[in-house]
Amino acid sequence: MLLPLCVVAEQLKSPNGNLTMTFKVNNGFPYYSLDFKGKAVIKDSRIGLEIKNDSGLMDGFVLKDSKTSTFDETWTPVWGETKTIRNYYNELAVTLAQPQHNNRYIIVRFRLYDDGLGFRYEFPKQDHLNYFVIKEEHSQFAMAGDHKAFWLPGDYDTEEYSTMTSKLSEIRGLMKSAVTENVSQKVFSPTGVQTALQMKTDDGLYINLHEAALKDYPCMSLNLDDSKMIFESWLTPDAQGSKGYMQTPCTSPWRTIIVSDDARVMLSSNLILNLNDPCKYTDTSWIKPMKYVGVWWAMITGMNTWSYTNATSIKLGQFDYSKAVPSGTHGATTENVKKYIDFAAAHHIPGVLVEGWNVGWEDWFGNSKEDVFDFVTPYPDFHVDELHRYAAERGVELIMHHETSASVRNYERHMDAAYKFMADNGYHAVKSGYVGNIIPRGEYHYGQWMVNHFLYCVTKAADYHIMVNAHEAVRPTGLCRTYPNLIGNEAARGTEYEAMGGNNTDHTTILPFTRLQGGPMDYTPGIFDTKLTFLDAIGRKDHSFVHSTLVRQLALYVTMYSPLQMAADLPENYNKHLDAFKFIEDVPVDWDDSRYLEAEPGDYITVARKGKGTDDWYVGNTSDENGHSSVLKLDFLDKYKKYEATLYCDAPNAHFRDNPGAYVITTKKVNSRTVLKLKAAPGGGFAISIKAVK
Amino acid sequence: MLLPLCVVAEQLKSPNGNLTMTFKVNNGFPYYSLDFKGKAVIKDSRIGLEIKNDSGLMDGFVLKDSKTSTFDETWTPVWGETKTIRNYYNELAVTLAQPQHNNRYIIVRFRLYDDGLGFRYEFPKQDHLNYFVIKEEHSQFAMAGDHKAFWLPGDYDTEEYSTMTSKLSEIRGLMKSAVTENVSQKVFSPTGVQTALQMKTDDGLYINLHEAALKDYPCMSLNLDDSKMIFESWLTPDAQGSKGYMQTPCTSPWRTIIVSDDARVMLSSNLILNLNDPCKYTDTSWIKPMKYVGVWWAMITGMNTWSYTNATSIKLGQFDYSKAVPSGTHGATTENVKKYIDFAAAHHIPGVLVEGWNVGWEDWFGNSKEDVFDFVTPYPDFHVDELHRYAAERGVELIMHHETSASVRNYERHMDAAYKFMADNGYHAVKSGYVGNIIPRGEYHYGQWMVNHFLYCVTKAADYHIMVNAHEAVRPTGLCRTYPNLIGNEAARGTEYEAMGGNNTDHTTILPFTRLQGGPMDYTPGIFDTKLTFLDAIGRKDHSFVHSTLVRQLALYVTMYSPLQMAADLPENYNKHLDAFKFIEDVPVDWDDSRYLEAEPGDYITVARKGKGTDDWYVGNTSDENGHSSVLKLDFLDKYKKYEATLYCDAPNAHFRDNPGAYVITTKKVNSRTVLKLKAAPGGGFAISIKAVK
Repeated sequence: MLLPLCVVAEQLKSPNGNLTMTFKVNNGFPYYSLDFKGKAVIKDSRIGLEIKNDSGLMDGFVLKDSKTSTFDETWTPVWGETKTIRNYYNELAVTLAQPQHNNRYIIVRFRLYDDGLGFRYEFPKQDHLNYFVIKEEHSQFAMAGDHKAFWLPGDYDTEEYSTMTSKLSEIRGLMKSAVTENVSQKVFSPTGVQTALQMKTDDGLYINLHEAALKDYPCMSLNLDDSKMIFESWLTPDAQGSKGYMQTPCTSPWRTIIVSDDARVMLSSNLILNLNDPCKYTDTSWIKPMKYVGVWWAMITGMNTWSYTNATSIKLGQFDYSKAVPSGTHGATTENVKKYIDFAAAHHIPGVLVEGWNVGWEDWFGNSKEDVFDFVTPYPDFHVDELHRYAAERGVELIMHHETSASVRNYERHMDAAYKFMADNGYHAVKSGYVGNIIPRGEYHYGQWMVNHFLYCVTKAADYHIMVNAHEAVRPTGLCRTYPNLIGNEAARGTEYEAMGGNNTDHTTILPFTRLQGGPMDYTPGIFDTKLTFLDAIGRKDHSFVHSTLVRQLALYVTMYSPLQMAADLPENYNKHLDAFKFIEDVPVDWDDSRYLEAEPGDYITVARKGKGTDDWYVGNTSDENGHSSVLKLDFLDKYKKYEATLYCDAPNAHFRDNPGAYVITTKKVNSRTVLKLKAAPGGGFAISIKAVK
Repeated sequence: MLLPLCVVAEQLKSPNGNLTMTFKVNNGFPYYSLDFKGKAVIKDSRIGLEIKNDSGLMDGFVLKDSKTSTFDETWTPVWGETKTIRNYYNELAVTLAQPQHNNRYIIVRFRLYDDGLGFRYEFPKQDHLNYFVIKEEHSQFAMAGDHKAFWLPGDYDTEEYSTMTSKLSEIRGLMKSAVTENVSQKVFSPTGVQTALQMKTDDGLYINLHEAALKDYPCMSLNLDDSKMIFESWLTPDAQGSKGYMQTPCTSPWRTIIVSDDARVMLSSNLILNLNDPCKYTDTSWIKPMKYVGVWWAMITGMNTWSYTNATSIKLGQFDYSKAVPSGTHGATTENVKKYIDFAAAHHIPGVLVEGWNVGWEDWFGNSKEDVFDFVTPYPDFHVDELHRYAAERGVELIMHHETSASVRNYERHMDAAYKFMADNGYHAVKSGYVGNIIPRGEYHYGQWMVNHFLYCVTKAADYHIMVNAHEAVRPTGLCRTYPNLIGNEAARGTEYEAMGGNNTDHTTILPFTRLQGGPMDYTPGIFDTKLTFLDAIGRKDHSFVHSTLVRQLALYVTMYSPLQMAADLPENYNKHLDAFKFIEDVPVDWDDSRYLEAEPGDYITVARKGKGTDDWYVGNTSDENGHSSVLKLDFLDKYKKYEATLYCDAPNAHFRDNPGAYVITTKKVNSRTVLKLKAAPGGGFAISIKAVK
C-alpha cells in the first residue's frame, strides 16, 4: 500500500497513555482522530472554518510547525465539588499555514487529558489575518458507530427540552416528537442537537461532546450527517446569518470530548473547568455559596401571580400603580415575603428570592416590548426598606430578581442603576431571566451578541460584588472558573417544568452527564408536595406533578451539584415534613471532596460529598422509573473516625407516581468499613448525612 | 351627478383662509387633500397603516367622530431664529373606527397652519388595539403635477448625497447617477427619496414634505409612483424587515406639508418646531449657543490623522500605546490643541473641538468592530488635565468628540462613564458620530432602534448638562424644541465634502429649504483657503476645493442658521485674513429676529438677523454658480436708530472657481431707509454686519 506523500501526522498520548490523539494534514485538509484504549472514539475528522467573502480556513494547509508540551498544576476553585483540581494534560499545538494566502496561519491546540480531549482554533495577529467573519465552523466529530445518545433538539433560543434517548440513527425520525407544542422551540435542522451531548457506545464507552470557555463567539450546536455518523459544529447565527465577528489575536472556544469506559469518570471530570482560564478576580471573599427559599413556586404553579394588577398594558413611569386595583393574587407582598424570611431564619437558609417584586409584570411577555422593566421600582405592596431591615435582623438576605423579558438593550441601560440599587439595599445575588425573543430583534439567545451580553452582566456584577444566577442564558461552558460569581445557570428544563407537564422520570439521572458538564444548574429542587395537592385546595385539579419521590428531592441537593441551591417548595409544605427538611437544612452547598459511587446515564447516579471544612459526608442517589438497589461501601470515610448517619429512604412501597411521599428516616452509627444496602423506589432515591462524631 | 352615499367629508381652513384641507372617508378608505388659494397642493391621498399579522388599519373605516378646534400660542425658544414663535393653527381630529374589528379605532389629527399642514396617526389605548407591529405606513402625498424637486435618493443609512434637481418624472432615470461610487450609499427603490423634500410647481407654488417629532418610530422616506405622481411613506425597516413596534397609547410622527407661493415663507416657517412638544427641561440655563474652532479640518483634508500610530489592529486595554511608535501625523496633540485654544481665546471663540484625542482610531472604520472606543482614554500625547487648565485659564472650553463607529451597544455601555468624564473635565458639549454600519448588525441608522438611541443620548446628556451635536444621526424633525440640548446635527453633506470631491455650488442655497427644515445643521463653514493651498505645500496636488468664494463662507454663518457654528479652517489660514475673520468673530449664533429677504431654492438666499439681546443686525447672502444681484432695503432696521455697516463683498472679479479669495470690505453708515445694491459673485455671496451706533 502506498501512502500519499502529502500526509503529515503527529501523535499525542494522554498522561496515563489510555488516550491517543492523531493529527494529520492530508492533501491540505487537517484531520484529527481519538482512540481510547485502542478503541476509536473519534474517527478521522476534518477541522476548519468557512469565512465570509474569503476562500476560508478549510483547506490548502501545510503543517508549518508543531509543538508538544506537558502541563501539570493543581488549583483551588473558589467553590466546587472538590477542594483542589488537578489540571494535567499533554499538549500538541500545530501551526497550519496557507501558502496560497501569503502564508497566513492558524494554530490548532490540542490538550489531551486522561479523561478526554480539548481542542481549539487560535488566530494569531498577523498581516494577512486580522478582521474576519465566520460563515461556519466545520469541526467534525466522526463517531465510530451508531451510539446511544441523550440528546436535545438543536435550537438557537432554548435548551428547555426533555432529553431524548435514542440511537444516533433514530434522531431524524424522532425530531418532530422531541419538540413540544405551544412552546417557543424551533429546531435548526432535522438532525441538529445541542451540547453537552452524552453518548454511550455498544461496547461500553461513554463519550461526551461539548465546549469550554465560550466567550465572544457563538454557541456551538452539532449537526449529524446520519449517513456517516459524523457530527459537525453548527454555530448560532446573528440577525444577518453571520456566525462570528473576529479580530486577531483571538481563539475559538475549546471543543471538548470527554471519554471513559466508566460512567463515574464522566461525572467527576474537570476537563471543561480546566480548559477555562484561572479566576480573573483577586478578591473573591464576597462570593459565597448559599441555599435559599423564595416567592416563586407559588407563581410557577399558578397559585399566585408575578403581577400586581390585572391591567393589560403598562407604560413604565406613566401607569399609576398607586391608583391601580390590585388583583389580589400578587405573590411578592411584604407580608408574604416575611413568611419566607421567618422560615429561612428558622432553618438557617441564608437567602430569600422574591420574584414579581418590581413593576411591569402585567404585560412583560410576548409583546416584544422594549421598555418592559426598570429593575428598581417596587410594586406598592412590596416594601424594600422594611424587608431589608426585617431580613437583616434575622440574619437573612433577599435575593434580587431581574427578569429582562430578553429586552437586552433595556437591561443594559438600567444595569448600573439596578446593581447599585442592589448594593444599596442589601442584595448580593441576582437571578436574571431572558424569557422570550431577544431584543435586538433577530438576535438569538446563543449568538455571539448574547454570549457577549451574558458575560458582560457577570463582570459588571462583579464590580458591585454581586453573584449572578442567569436563567434562559447560554448553556455554561466552565466560565465559572474564571468568573466564580457566575454562581448558577438554568439552561435546561428545571423543576419548574414539573408544574408544566412534568419532567421525564430519568431527567435527573441524565442532567449531570449533560447540562452540568459546563457548570452548576439552579435546578430548584426540594418539592415535598410532589403531587401539588395545595392546588387541589384552590380548585385546580388538572395540574401536573413532580416525577420524583420526596426522598429523591432531598438527594438532588447532593446529586445536582450547585453552590446555589433552592428549597423550592412552599414553607407550609415543608412545615408538614420538618424531619425530612432537616436534610436540606444540613446539606452543604460547597465541598472538599466528591466521590461518584455509581452512575449510569438515564438510570441512576449515586454520589458522596464531603462538606467544605468539615468531616461530614452527604450521599445522594437519584434513580429512574425502575428504581435502583445500591450496595454502598463507605470506604471514603476517614478510617480513624466514627460517624453517625441519618438515612432518608423511600419507604418500601414508595413510588414517584402513586406514593411519592412515603419515606423512612433512620439513624445509624457507621465507619469506613460499613456497607449499606439501600433501595431507591421507582423515581426515587436516597439521601444520607454522615456526621463525624466528635 | 350622483355622489356615492358612503362619502363623508370634513373641511378645515387655515387661520388666514389660504389653505383648505379636506378629509373624507370613501367606501371605508380615508383620504385627505390640500389646496392653497384654490390650487391643488395634495390631491386626494389615502392614509393608513399595514400591520403585521393583521388585516391592518387601511380600510373598513367609518368616521365615528370629528372635532375641530383652534390653537394660538406664542412661545419662547431656548435658542432660535426669532425671540418668540407663534403656534397658530386650526385642528381637525377624526376618529376612524373599524366596525369589523370590534370597533377598534384610530385618530388622525390634522393641524392646518397658514404655511402648511401637519397630520399624524394616534393610537389610543383600547382593548382591541394594544401591541402591534407596523408592516408599512401608507400615507400618500398625491402631487398635482410633475413638479421640480430637490431630492436625495432614499437610503436607510445616509443623507450624505448631493441634491438632485429635476422633474419628478426624471427621478427614476437619474437615480443611478445620484449615487456616488465608493461611498456606502444604497437606495431602497428606483424612485425613493428622502425628506425634507422641496418642490416647486410650474405655477410657482413651493411645497415641502417632511416629518416632525420623530420619536420611537422609524424615519420616513417617500416612494414615488411616477405614473401618477403620488408619493407614499416608506418607513425604515429593522433587522427583520419590520417597521415599528408600537404599544398604545402612541402616535406616529407628524407628516408635514409646508406650502407657499413665496419661497421666503418656506424658510421662515416654524411649522415643524410648532408640531413638536414644548421643552421638557425646567432648567435650560446650561444650554448655550456657541461658536467653535477645532482640530478637524486638518484631518478631513488628510494633512493630519485622527490616529496616533500606524498600527493596523488595536484591542483596547491590550494595546500598549505608551510603547507604540507615533506616526508623527497625529492631529490631537497637546501642543497643537494649545494653538487652537490660543486662537480661540484671541478671537472670542468659546469652544475648541478636538477629534482623534482618544485611543482606538487606528482601526475604527470598516471592520464592524464592536469594542472600538472607550471614550475616556486619551492618546499619550493628549493631556486632558493640562488642556483643561490651559483652556479654562483663557476662557475657552474644549468640545468633546465621541465617534461611535456606529457600534451602538458599545457606546451605550460607556455612555455614563463618558459623560461623567466630560463633566469632570470641563466639557459641556459633545460632537458624536455614527460612521459605518450599525451594530447591532442589520439595524439601520434611521430605523426605530436608532431613532430611539439618538434621543436616549440627548436625554441622558441632559442629565449631565451636556449639549449634543450628532453627526450621521437621523435627520432632525424639530426635536430641538423639546430637547434644546440637541444643539446640532449633520444629516447632510457638510463642508467636509468640499475636501472630498466638493459640494454642488448651489448646495447652500438648497439646504435651508430641505435639511434645515427639521433643525440646525453643523455645516462647519468658514473655509478661507478654499483652494486648500496648504495641501499643495505638503505635495498633495490632486485635492478638491470648496465651491464657494471666501465671502460666501462668511455669509453662511447667517444663511445657515445654527446655534452651534464652527470656524472650520486652520488658524494659520485665518491669520492671513483677520479682517475677514472679524465677521466670524462678530456674528452671533442666537437671534431675536430673522427676515428672509430673498430666496429661490437652487439660486440664492438672503437673510437678515438681529443678534440676541442687541440692536445689531447681520445679513448674509449665498448664491449659486450664476451669482446674484441684490437690492436690499434695510427697512427692518429701527427707524429711530443709526447704524454702521461693514460690508464683506466679493470683489468684482471674484469667482468661486478661479478667484475665490478676492474680497472687498467697506464700511458705511446706514439706516432704515438705506437701500444697498450688492452683487454676489458666481458661487459667492455677501455678509454684512450692521451695528447700532450708541
